[in-house]
Amino acid sequence: MSSWGNDVKISVFGESHGNGIGVVIDGLPAGEKLNLDEIYLQMSRRAPGKDKAATPRAERDIPEILSGLLNDTTTGAPLCAVIRNTNVRSGDYGNVLNCPRPGHADYTGYVRYNGFNDIRGGGHFSGRLTAPLVFAGAVCRQILEKKGIKIAAHISSIGDIEDERFNGADISCELMDRLSKTTFGLIDQSREEKMRALIEECRLSQDSIGGTIECAVTGMPVGAGSPMFNGIENVISSIIFGIPAVKGIEFGSGFDGAKLRGSQNNDEFYYDNGVVKTRTNNHGGILGGISSGMPIIFRTAIKPTPSISVKQRTVDLNSKSDSELEIHGRHDPCIVVRAVPVIESAAAVAIINILSEVHKL
Amino acid sequence: MSSWGNDVKISVFGESHGNGIGVVIDGLPAGEKLNLDEIYLQMSRRAPGKDKAATPRAERDIPEILSGLLNDTTTGAPLCAVIRNTNVRSGDYGNVLNCPRPGHADYTGYVRYNGFNDIRGGGHFSGRLTAPLVFAGAVCRQILEKKGIKIAAHISSIGDIEDERFNGADISCELMDRLSKTTFGLIDQSREEKMRALIEECRLSQDSIGGTIECAVTGMPVGAGSPMFNGIENVISSIIFGIPAVKGIEFGSGFDGAKLRGSQNNDEFYYDNGVVKTRTNNHGGILGGISSGMPIIFRTAIKPTPSISVKQRTVDLNSKSDSELEIHGRHDPCIVVRAVPVIESAAAVAIINILSEVHKL
Amino acid sequence: MSSWGNDVKISVFGESHGNGIGVVIDGLPAGEKLNLDEIYLQMSRRAPGKDKAATPRAERDIPEILSGLLNDTTTGAPLCAVIRNTNVRSGDYGNVLNCPRPGHADYTGYVRYNGFNDIRGGGHFSGRLTAPLVFAGAVCRQILEKKGIKIAAHISSIGDIEDERFNGADISCELMDRLSKTTFGLIDQSREEKMRALIEECRLSQDSIGGTIECAVTGMPVGAGSPMFNGIENVISSIIFGIPAVKGIEFGSGFDGAKLRGSQNNDEFYYDNGVVKTRTNNHGGILGGISSGMPIIFRTAIKPTPSISVKQRTVDLNSKSDSELEIHGRHDPCIVVRAVPVIESAAAVAIINILSEVHKL
Amino acid sequence: MSSWGNDVKISVFGESHGNGIGVVIDGLPAGEKLNLDEIYLQMSRRAPGKDKAATPRAERDIPEILSGLLNDTTTGAPLCAVIRNTNVRSGDYGNVLNCPRPGHADYTGYVRYNGFNDIRGGGHFSGRLTAPLVFAGAVCRQILEKKGIKIAAHISSIGDIEDERFNGADISCELMDRLSKTTFGLIDQSREEKMRALIEECRLSQDSIGGTIECAVTGMPVGAGSPMFNGIENVISSIIFGIPAVKGIEFGSGFDGAKLRGSQNNDEFYYDNGVVKTRTNNHGGILGGISSGMPIIFRTAIKPTPSISVKQRTVDLNSKSDSELEIHGRHDPCIVVRAVPVIESAAAVAIINILSEVHKL
Repeated sequence: MSSWGNDVKISVFGESHGNGIGVVIDGLPAGEKLNLDEIYLQMSRRAPGKDKAATPRAERDIPEILSGLLNDTTTGAPLCAVIRNTNVRSGDYGNVLNCPRPGHADYTGYVRYNGFNDIRGGGHFSGRLTAPLVFAGAVCRQILEKKGIKIAAHISSIGDIEDERFNGADISCELMDRLSKTTFGLIDQSREEKMRALIEECRLSQDSIGGTIECAVTGMPVGAGSPMFNGIENVISSIIFGIPAVKGIEFGSGFDGAKLRGSQNNDEFYYDNGVVKTRTNNHGGILGGISSGMPIIFRTAIKPTPSISVKQRTVDLNSKSDSELEIHGRHDPCIVVRAVPVIESAAAVAIINILSEVHKL
Repeated sequence: MSSWGNDVKISVFGESHGNGIGVVIDGLPAGEKLNLDEIYLQMSRRAPGKDKAATPRAERDIPEILSGLLNDTTTGAPLCAVIRNTNVRSGDYGNVLNCPRPGHADYTGYVRYNGFNDIRGGGHFSGRLTAPLVFAGAVCRQILEKKGIKIAAHISSIGDIEDERFNGADISCELMDRLSKTTFGLIDQSREEKMRALIEECRLSQDSIGGTIECAVTGMPVGAGSPMFNGIENVISSIIFGIPAVKGIEFGSGFDGAKLRGSQNNDEFYYDNGVVKTRTNNHGGILGGISSGMPIIFRTAIKPTPSISVKQRTVDLNSKSDSELEIHGRHDPCIVVRAVPVIESAAAVAIINILSEVHKL
Repeated sequence: MSSWGNDVKISVFGESHGNGIGVVIDGLPAGEKLNLDEIYLQMSRRAPGKDKAATPRAERDIPEILSGLLNDTTTGAPLCAVIRNTNVRSGDYGNVLNCPRPGHADYTGYVRYNGFNDIRGGGHFSGRLTAPLVFAGAVCRQILEKKGIKIAAHISSIGDIEDERFNGADISCELMDRLSKTTFGLIDQSREEKMRALIEECRLSQDSIGGTIECAVTGMPVGAGSPMFNGIENVISSIIFGIPAVKGIEFGSGFDGAKLRGSQNNDEFYYDNGVVKTRTNNHGGILGGISSGMPIIFRTAIKPTPSISVKQRTVDLNSKSDSELEIHGRHDPCIVVRAVPVIESAAAVAIINILSEVHKL
Repeated sequence: MSSWGNDVKISVFGESHGNGIGVVIDGLPAGEKLNLDEIYLQMSRRAPGKDKAATPRAERDIPEILSGLLNDTTTGAPLCAVIRNTNVRSGDYGNVLNCPRPGHADYTGYVRYNGFNDIRGGGHFSGRLTAPLVFAGAVCRQILEKKGIKIAAHISSIGDIEDERFNGADISCELMDRLSKTTFGLIDQSREEKMRALIEECRLSQDSIGGTIECAVTGMPVGAGSPMFNGIENVISSIIFGIPAVKGIEFGSGFDGAKLRGSQNNDEFYYDNGVVKTRTNNHGGILGGISSGMPIIFRTAIKPTPSISVKQRTVDLNSKSDSELEIHGRHDPCIVVRAVPVIESAAAVAIINILSEVHKL
């Protein structure tokens, strides 16, 4: 299913080479004035060709809003945005899949849909489907921002080159604002050059590289989220894994914390001007599934793009025999860069649902 | 919310010091003969006092099945199992929370429920609530096992002591069977002594230690799961984070894979006696959210139990000032051991839902 | 599925002759003080033997609350109540169904569950399963009552003997309070004698009789409910049809309104001390799925109990041939009387969900 | 919420005077060849101007399919269809509501959405939103038809002029096929003239008239649907009330059956060539929420269109005083005729979900 959410539902549709892609957002509060330029800015952060580390293919993803908005203000009715695919070729396609690409959903999609799924450009599995997700997230984050809630992510690593991590106990508004608007988001911008060099090296060797993205949500009210299965971790992870290439998520100290002792990992409470805070933030702003008021921090693992140009071994599903495959065309050597606003967007959709549940929105 | 699932829904209830805890499982197929001894075995793997590495407090968790089972066979009606709490003291409790324990949900639960949640023993946040989850999982895994699907997990690390990892490309039935019945599950059993020594050291120093659990699902049919938000990763993670102390999850090569190149991380397809397989299993049995037929592999990060006996700093919510806290009583120095069957159980509930969606059950 | 609800979910379990029946209510607000005597009062309105028009078999349905309540106050955790079945015979039952009773779910349940459903006493299809629903409703209506929302129903007809209808434009608190506590609820109490005589006549002729129940909800805030599929009619009907024997529902003027002209059926707005009201209430308090602030009014059709003692023709599923059937034992000649609090209860669970959606609770 | 369904979800969007309306259908099986002409036929049955009893305003509702279909065959990905609104005027609208129309959602929508809903043409409450519902139903019914399941409805009454009712025990394929293609569907076509005369009379008097629609589903397999809350009545009613103007629904003998005795209303089983059938169909094909294999029969009450041209009393929300209102323009004097395919369509979406639940699709 490509539908997600309870109080605010999104329903994402489209295939890479179909007529169009888009999203319906149902359950938005009425009366929210939206800044469309801000939405387009977020979409352009994800769009290819905006950054030299990404695929050079230009793509214009201006969404058309069909419903739910009047005078740039939400009406409370479902908001539908459509992005047309401009690369559609007409004609009767064969839709023939012989040799599934390693690391892609070609084979699993073929079995899941009995060979009827649209395989052109990855169909519904295409990373292009994250564009409507960014649209939905851009809408939600504007509503959240008015409540003082900010969402921003950065490239926490490319291959083995790491950025600094968020200081979970104290994240400045300036940092959040800077990261949420940039296209190569780093806390320590001095790492950019090395990261770009690594990506370029992978591109030249017809290979790709993975990385991690760290995301923070600041300004969360205390007491949002519910045990056991509507906890913030449950909700965020259930949408985040909808982003192609995400293969892991950790909150707060996460896997590193699993190596620690309780005396090291516990975050002590203290009063800061009448507000309960913790001195460290190994809990990632979440205890028992519920927000503590500290920044929510999570990191996601992004696998290296499976689209590589070197020759790979695979199978031929027609002849039922082993085979080889060479994929031509231009590919993103590193999807991590463009995935940053997608992660933020999915988080925004998650957070607006979490807040709606406890009537705090 | 403590309800989860679509085709097979579980609804977990109870508080640590209330009258009882339990689970309703709605949507089970009718006509499934259940082996109750197998269910009790799974519950005893989680029960405290079964292993010297866990808390010494004895607890008898024999569930009473109220409905849904006739002649040990599912009737198709909701199956409700209740485990009575035998430690309930009568009388009018004050339910006063002064000093929230660091790392626990005391503070967030207090705010979430306006101070009305049952704080005795952690209330609904207690790890004791995983007992009904194990019950539900034990029911589901028996149904899955008849379809040839096995689920087993092992302690992949305690602190920085690691077990071997599953060889995701080839996991033997013997290993799965052994792990799914034991209480200190390791692939390389020679690591047990060192792990136990570390846990004992933490216990003696009134501290605790975290770890990781790796879980495998073998025998999955190809083509289960759906993009984008009903992918196997989405579904498994959304239930796994319902287990207290889980702070991270990764599938296949996960965070390690994020350091690799596409040429290293892609898994090549080949034919093995007419069956499509991959030579490696960095994808963890999931591509595009859909099962590939290879074992599903995931690892979870378990934080060190926040219940430690050393003095800790916290706040006093009454006086609104900083304070200190010493927690007495016996605690699990390492919850990882007992969490193994809980992880397996949550996975079983997830898998039965994933299979139901595509009519493969 | 026997689970229902979004913000406040109920999960009903049990079979007529199993160990027990009950309900889990998940998502209740914390801090609600409950009057248990009021809950038992509601349950006794539904219990058999409380009224001479109902089955004479005594039944004690005192629920045990396992969780979610501390000092009679909701904790915010799932509230589970269990009612034990005291009529359970031990031993290995044959569970053999030969001749399905006309009008019952014997045949459809047999096919649905491949013959594995518990057929004793109707199993999960038994009217006894409405007891936990009344429990859940009794909890919800107490919470609603504090917001000024009252729910009451009356027997609007038995066979062709009709009670007056609610004056939807003006329903007094006194009437609501009286109806919500009685066991043979009528607006015009002078009709009771004739109705009882008809029921007695049906009992003596080993037959049964149907009827209708009209329910009102007063004190609703304006603006609750959502188009298109979360409208108040959608939500109420989706739970009401969970009550066995309900075969129809209409809101406001309903089927009678379908015979009218717009100029007759439209309800004119007017200001009453600054509050928008309508002079008539053909819309049943709902326009576009959303509450208008006028009383919500709906009527349900209750079919005559299919349990009758006269000889009936049916089939023998074993021999696959036509057959005859005589059902012995004491049956309710008219289920309508006891169904009144069940209808109110289902409405209460519906309303608490409707209000939760728009953050008005 | 304008989203509905579990296994097959629909998400309807749009406002009467926005850029476009449409629907996303998520969860359709892959590989279903669709006949687009059949879909357009169904949409034209609902379209205004196709029948002289409906509004004369021409409207071209050719949907554009953006995704989910390749070579006229479902791909398994969400299918999105968009119908553009051609009557959109540009410019900055005032969106001012002074005097809510009696019987419309103007007032309730105004409160629900704090005055931000698009009131032009009824916005999201407009009957125009049933066009995407008919699209979705037309897709689903083609899939059902291949399984031998037919859905057809007829005008069972206009005002007090009644058509014959379905003979629920025996409905011919010819009747089903005829009704499912016509625009003024009657079992006894001799009633058409009188009905049209009544509608014309209402039109001339600037008034409107209500009616009822009876719908049948034939070819249902036995054993679909689940107690208690996923029963066929629950599921059908929860979507049917999403159609504007529906104020009541009854299954089988419904409200008439509530006047009967058990011996009259019970349907006896018999074997017909090895198939279990009932001689009468007062149960409307549903027992215990589950299909019996007999035709599913339900009737809905459609209120008279509230849009009438005679002067009506209402309030002025600005001046907070009583006021009067005259609505100009052309209106449907009787929406019942065009609602027939909408009822069928909603039933089709319901049935495909009911069948998916029990893996019978």
